[in-house]
Amino acid sequence: MKDVAAHAGVGLKTVSRVVNGEPGVTPDTERRVQESIESLGFRRNDSARVLRKGRTASVGLVLEDLADPFYGPLSRAVEEVARAHGALLINGSSAEDPGREQELALALCARRVDGLIVIPAGDDHRYLEPEIRAGVATVFVDRPAGRIEADAVLSDSFGGARAGTAHLLAHGHRRIAFIGDQPRIHTAAERLRGYRAAMEDAGARIDDSWVSLGSTAPERVRGALAAMLDAAEPVTAVLAGNNRVTVTVVRHLAARDRPVALVGFDDIELADLLGITVIAQDAAALGRTAAERLFRRLDGVREAPARVTLETRLIPRGSGELAPAD
Amino acid sequence: MKDVAAHAGVGLKTVSRVVNGEPGVTPDTERRVQESIESLGFRRNDSARVLRKGRTASVGLVLEDLADPFYGPLSRAVEEVARAHGALLINGSSAEDPGREQELALALCARRVDGLIVIPAGDDHRYLEPEIRAGVATVFVDRPAGRIEADAVLSDSFGGARAGTAHLLAHGHRRIAFIGDQPRIHTAAERLRGYRAAMEDAGARIDDSWVSLGSTAPERVRGALAAMLDAAEPVTAVLAGNNRVTVTVVRHLAARDRPVALVGFDDIELADLLGITVIAQDAAALGRTAAERLFRRLDGVREAPARVTLETRLIPRGSGELAPAD
Repeated sequence: MKDVAAHAGVGLKTVSRVVNGEPGVTPDTERRVQESIESLGFRRNDSARVLRKGRTASVGLVLEDLADPFYGPLSRAVEEVARAHGALLINGSSAEDPGREQELALALCARRVDGLIVIPAGDDHRYLEPEIRAGVATVFVDRPAGRIEADAVLSDSFGGARAGTAHLLAHGHRRIAFIGDQPRIHTAAERLRGYRAAMEDAGARIDDSWVSLGSTAPERVRGALAAMLDAAEPVTAVLAGNNRVTVTVVRHLAARDRPVALVGFDDIELADLLGITVIAQDAAALGRTAAERLFRRLDGVREAPARVTLETRLIPRGSGELAPAD
Repeated sequence: MKDVAAHAGVGLKTVSRVVNGEPGVTPDTERRVQESIESLGFRRNDSARVLRKGRTASVGLVLEDLADPFYGPLSRAVEEVARAHGALLINGSSAEDPGREQELALALCARRVDGLIVIPAGDDHRYLEPEIRAGVATVFVDRPAGRIEADAVLSDSFGGARAGTAHLLAHGHRRIAFIGDQPRIHTAAERLRGYRAAMEDAGARIDDSWVSLGSTAPERVRGALAAMLDAAEPVTAVLAGNNRVTVTVVRHLAARDRPVALVGFDDIELADLLGITVIAQDAAALGRTAAERLFRRLDGVREAPARVTLETRLIPRGSGELAPAD
């Protein structure tokens, strides 16, 4: 308050009046005090919340890909919680580019969001430390923060992939492919780890040619899958590492004669009608849990950063229950 | 500039130095001048663009529903154009609530976006007039603005629905249902108009019980469809008014014995594998066209507000080519 008074060139009592919404301050002085408060970054603690009353509260959500349907229910759940707290939700997408993620997160902070929910593209979030210290409540979702301590709400990617692979093994498969996203992405790495663990549990050998991580662009996935299916000893089953991969695998398998078993990570729309077995995440629960955690912090609850892991669920619909073609 | 100088308590020359990025101004004075410029709202004209150099440019996108996959490619296309112009994209969703749309659009303006792309929930956009006058470039997409003159980029909903209905008529159907979104939504009203026009062109009678507009919630759509299928003279074909309706209709028809023809408005993922005939919109082209128009305005091009209508495309995949069951 002293700094604010000095910066605005007014007395401490005037700042106190503005903070507490008391009369006796001219509009011009009030604006000057508000501007000083904002310049000095006193905007996240309790008195700042009072100061900013009249301005709509807002939270920012940094997504990874606007066009990925997985983020639709997640975003909507965040929005519903924000709305219940009278706050606006502002989104942006990193397009899976760490530089873009940083630019966007800081741009949202500069626009004075009260809190941030981040689906990280990068793996080093030290750039957020000054903002977090300044009071921007921050929760990571879907993937954890890198190199900082922060709340994270995740799906059990490891356990889900392990269960999906075990399901294929239980149906008699041994030559099982794993096609996933870029290995630097936490969920992709965890799902690969789950696949390996299940294979190891079953004493099944993993041929290097059965594992393909990289872009989820259809051409890349199609090429990787075709190579595994056209090999001398073709894979008889596929664990698809995410919904984008699943869609391409389903299309490609539909054009082949030999049946190949498939378990996809993430549920997709109409998968029920197509009989696609999936490991479903609850995208809405991820968003809701992260948002509730964020608002608890905004409400002043002080807790150490924690990691919350939500269970996945295997939904058998036919494609994962096919026996090996040979 | 005079107002800025007076507001900041500095000379005109100082303001000019700040505007033109010349040396000889202390950081504190520079900040004071910048704050005055912002307070006075001098932010959209050419000198403001210079003033704001160093700050990342940004555009806001007001969506209607974060969880609707139709908006994924549209948002991503807007983001790509913004990115090519070095600007950040900030999204928000109205959740189909006109009050929320207004709140969000004005909140984005208050956070000083350079331009706005709006998928409107409401039908009265006079609240945006002061912002547009102040220089916020604004383009409406998917649905036109209400009660103001503004750029709009739309799909040909009327023509698409007319073509889809004509397609069903050409395959021998006469009892054709139209199940659509709320009638106050422009696209829903236009698609209904297209359906009516095609029926009239063919001299086909429309029974009131074949038309159902309202929420796209699955229960509502399922109820409406069941009533039409269980009637004494059941419909033999359905024109689904949007992608949400199509998904529910596909699910419901899959559980019925009698085949019913279906044409859906909007393409949906995996519709190719399910053999669903659709009237496809190019969601990415909608976003791209709107964003390019927005950036032309931000680049200072002065044109009268215009309406751009993009063609739709009927994609026959089986469901729309079924003959009437009776």
